[in-house]
Amino acid sequence: MRDRRRSRGYRAERDLVIRLWRLGFAVLRAPASGAKIKRADYPDIVAIKNGKVAVFEVKSRRELSTIYIEEEQLRKLKTFTERAGGKAYIAVKIPRIEWKFIPIEELERTPKGRYKVRKDTIAKSPGLEKVLADLGLLRTLEDYIGNKGK
Amino acid sequence: MRDRRRSRGYRAERDLVIRLWRLGFAVLRAPASGAKIKRADYPDIVAIKNGKVAVFEVKSRRELSTIYIEEEQLRKLKTFTERAGGKAYIAVKIPRIEWKFIPIEELERTPKGRYKVRKDTIAKSPGLEKVLADLGLLRTLEDYIGNKGK
Repeated sequence: MRDRRRSRGYRAERDLVIRLWRLGFAVLRAPASGAKIKRADYPDIVAIKNGKVAVFEVKSRRELSTIYIEEEQLRKLKTFTERAGGKAYIAVKIPRIEWKFIPIEELERTPKGRYKVRKDTIAKSPGLEKVLADLGLLRTLEDYIGNKGK
Repeated sequence: MRDRRRSRGYRAERDLVIRLWRLGFAVLRAPASGAKIKRADYPDIVAIKNGKVAVFEVKSRRELSTIYIEEEQLRKLKTFTERAGGKAYIAVKIPRIEWKFIPIEELERTPKGRYKVRKDTIAKSPGLEKVLADLGLLRTLEDYIGNKGK
């Protein structure tokens, strides 16, 4: 069971790495568990394009459900992202629902001191295009009009 | 012998990671050899601060000597750095000489199709402050004068 879950998580990360690479990002993936470097100290995926930085914590689930993240892990994610000058997301992969991206600012604190993102928030969250927009990597309508004018 | 060399390389990388972290960078280190992810696909160290990206291939030597890098490795380093929009260096650590940083543009092609940086070039190369200057992270004299005026 744990192995199957880990392997699903591994495949999900790989899928996101490939998508980001195809979009022109330089992509770094955290060392696999068991590597010398403690995995918890690194975000799952860091993607950089022209100095714009996106940081991802990847969660793969068999079906839509509330996702929890430990306070300590969120703290590390925030520190890394603030230093890098980027934006951090919980990247959720669910079969048939495709990728959903939740900015970490939208996580809710639970009474037990963890953080969570609700099932319905995940369902309503946008796809990878929102990450590109947040980073200022999408061409605007103005760009197109500007180009037409040339 | 190989183990000792690897462990020296490991310590050198760790030393650079700590220095960069203290300077306020978000720092990523490649997975250790033997990890699931092929190490060769990643730069040894990637450091990001406020969207400025420095990429390092780390070489640790017992004494000053010409350093070689394979064409394929250099190509991967360049692709990563161009996508990220950063600057790449060969970071050389030699006991008592401290760190030396050689921008990859300064590598010379050898007749055998490898790339190298000569012993005397390494000796003359600058320290970490040059990396900060290249990234535009050093405050200029003007900044200081500007602050004094306030």
